[in-house]
Amino acid sequence: MNSEMINKNTPPLLGADMITLPQGFRAAGIAAGIKASGAKDLAMIVSDPPSTIAGVFTSNRVCAAPVKWCRAGLEGGKAQAVVTNSGNANACTGEQGMRDAAQMAQWTADQLEVPVDHVFVCSTGSIGFPLPMDKIESGIQQIVPELSPAGGKAAAEAIMTTDLHTKHWTVKVEIEGQPVVVSGIAKGAGMIEPNMATMLAFCMTDAEITQSALQAALHDAVNQSFNRITVDGDQSTNDTVLLLANGTAGPAHPLDESHPDWSAFVAALKEVTLQLALKIVDDGEGSNKRITVRVEGAASDADADRAARAIANSFLVKTSWAGAHAIWGRVMETMGYSGAEIDEDRVDIWYDQIHAVNDGISAGAERSEIEAVIAQPRFTLKVNLNIGSGSAVVYTCEITEEYVRINVE
Amino acid sequence: MNSEMINKNTPPLLGADMITLPQGFRAAGIAAGIKASGAKDLAMIVSDPPSTIAGVFTSNRVCAAPVKWCRAGLEGGKAQAVVTNSGNANACTGEQGMRDAAQMAQWTADQLEVPVDHVFVCSTGSIGFPLPMDKIESGIQQIVPELSPAGGKAAAEAIMTTDLHTKHWTVKVEIEGQPVVVSGIAKGAGMIEPNMATMLAFCMTDAEITQSALQAALHDAVNQSFNRITVDGDQSTNDTVLLLANGTAGPAHPLDESHPDWSAFVAALKEVTLQLALKIVDDGEGSNKRITVRVEGAASDADADRAARAIANSFLVKTSWAGAHAIWGRVMETMGYSGAEIDEDRVDIWYDQIHAVNDGISAGAERSEIEAVIAQPRFTLKVNLNIGSGSAVVYTCEITEEYVRINVE
Repeated sequence: MNSEMINKNTPPLLGADMITLPQGFRAAGIAAGIKASGAKDLAMIVSDPPSTIAGVFTSNRVCAAPVKWCRAGLEGGKAQAVVTNSGNANACTGEQGMRDAAQMAQWTADQLEVPVDHVFVCSTGSIGFPLPMDKIESGIQQIVPELSPAGGKAAAEAIMTTDLHTKHWTVKVEIEGQPVVVSGIAKGAGMIEPNMATMLAFCMTDAEITQSALQAALHDAVNQSFNRITVDGDQSTNDTVLLLANGTAGPAHPLDESHPDWSAFVAALKEVTLQLALKIVDDGEGSNKRITVRVEGAASDADADRAARAIANSFLVKTSWAGAHAIWGRVMETMGYSGAEIDEDRVDIWYDQIHAVNDGISAGAERSEIEAVIAQPRFTLKVNLNIGSGSAVVYTCEITEEYVRINVE
Repeated sequence: MNSEMINKNTPPLLGADMITLPQGFRAAGIAAGIKASGAKDLAMIVSDPPSTIAGVFTSNRVCAAPVKWCRAGLEGGKAQAVVTNSGNANACTGEQGMRDAAQMAQWTADQLEVPVDHVFVCSTGSIGFPLPMDKIESGIQQIVPELSPAGGKAAAEAIMTTDLHTKHWTVKVEIEGQPVVVSGIAKGAGMIEPNMATMLAFCMTDAEITQSALQAALHDAVNQSFNRITVDGDQSTNDTVLLLANGTAGPAHPLDESHPDWSAFVAALKEVTLQLALKIVDDGEGSNKRITVRVEGAASDADADRAARAIANSFLVKTSWAGAHAIWGRVMETMGYSGAEIDEDRVDIWYDQIHAVNDGISAGAERSEIEAVIAQPRFTLKVNLNIGSGSAVVYTCEITEEYVRINVE
């Protein structure tokens, strides 16, 4: 694999403030008047050749109308547009919400002159209010002329809710010796304002890929990225990840798992989704740290995951990180109720290189040594349960007073 | 049942600052130097006639040495003393912790001249540090002369950690026409300082009861009280509820489930445990509200419990209560990921008498009406899932900036 990360370490292709979209994609973002603030709130991504599409959605049993629309749209397997509004989640809006999502798709299809079942719809924002359809309609009319290969940044801005920063990542990879691009934009502020839907990510590639392979690759990539971040343990009604592959850059025969370059594509996709996911953690409201929680030696991977998530979601552990306190007892306690098999007399815990707990009791490290690790903006809390070979990693952040203030106010 | 609540609505038997212990019980609480603050930190409860004893303990797989000591002690079924220190949880202390718990029991047994297996030991406080055994030893020598029927209040003070208030409740009930007393003390600050163990409760009665009936009654009472409160979802290594019945007040034949007055005793015990549990919620750090979350119409009681706990533990719901925001969408979302069966188009939600959600969408109530309910110090959030007959209730509180500040600092 020749994976070249474009946006961060090398000069971006389209200027410092641009996002490199794969060939055949255009995007735009505008202010349509949905957000009271007047900020950008309508985004569109268009694939001029029909793309193969894959999608992964929230597992919440309460899910928004656009999620239902997109799930149904996956059956057709083709996409030419993704239209997204921020400021209103179109969730808990009943039959009216379903009609509004369909209407949003229809207006987009009409403007672009594409089949309505090639249009995917997303919404993010407040729950329980009907969409302002007049603003959606005029916004869709206004946004289509703005579509361009340089519009990725504007689209990334227009899907933001409480995000402080736009989130995008692009990787170049060679398939059959030809360069293809995998690119993505995302929104999600890690810790989420109440009533704001959580995360959206739209990934694009100009490679040609079969739908079943595309769906499998996206499923794996999401499990190792967006499903590895946890901020407050809540799951949104609107979480959506879409992946469009339009084949503009080849190869001649659609890529699938049997192709020798398949692993290169999968690695590129995983890099894009992981970097987007980490940007969501880093954008947490009131948060200044990223903590990697790594559990090893569990009875199973599922047990390791239970233990890691219990640690990462524990309000008391998270507040202790904000205060940089060396309270490893709370980590022990949290794993004890996680449901994971645990023999407390075998547990080892490290904060980066500092061995804090040995066989379930203090390993003798100085409090100050542990606290110096926790005071850093990034550190790894590693646990070895020493009872099996299961492992898991979760990325999370701390909880600060500022976060509560934002959420209370 | 003739249940007379003594401590709150009627004059207490032993003065305004006293706790009425059942006949045959004595208690004391002193400062033994375990807490750096110099506050009371050693408590003892003694039953002069050997009591029958029942116990319920934390389900955390990481549990403290004294919990292991008490679990083993239940097999003998008899108790004459409960000795408790605060300021140190004796948790995650390995073999040394087990030796220290046993030594604490032995010193108490020696001072009281009772069998060591009649002594129950509890600890609450910081995790991961060995007990200061010199202070425990001298404290046990000092506390025994202080034991008196009027010592309940001092004992309730000595088991406190971050609690702002002592917690006790007493109910009088007639068994075979004779008055018996059911009394309890508890500690637990609802929201818990990191590294501080959670809740302890010691209940006493002068009724004569078989051990199997006593254990069954305590199990039920705990499930309907301490297991119905949830503050931050974390479970402690040290949670312990003990119930001692010494038979001083009769009846001649030990009470069990077949006795016509059994239900009167059970009701009295449930009242004591529920009032103690509610006092723990009310003592939450930085908390000013008590919210009753009631879920009805679920597919099963277990499903109702899942939905109610998801709501009560959601960080985003709890912060919205602190701000008195009418964000019912977050309640819908939370139930959606709770694991409970839910058809969002059937859900109804009330804030006290205000109908906020009808069939999954806004019922048209004014935001200000809902916010007036949430602004109260106590309110009930009622959900009807309208798919079955399962129900559950959970008591919880809100999360404020002050709570985070206490936990961060």
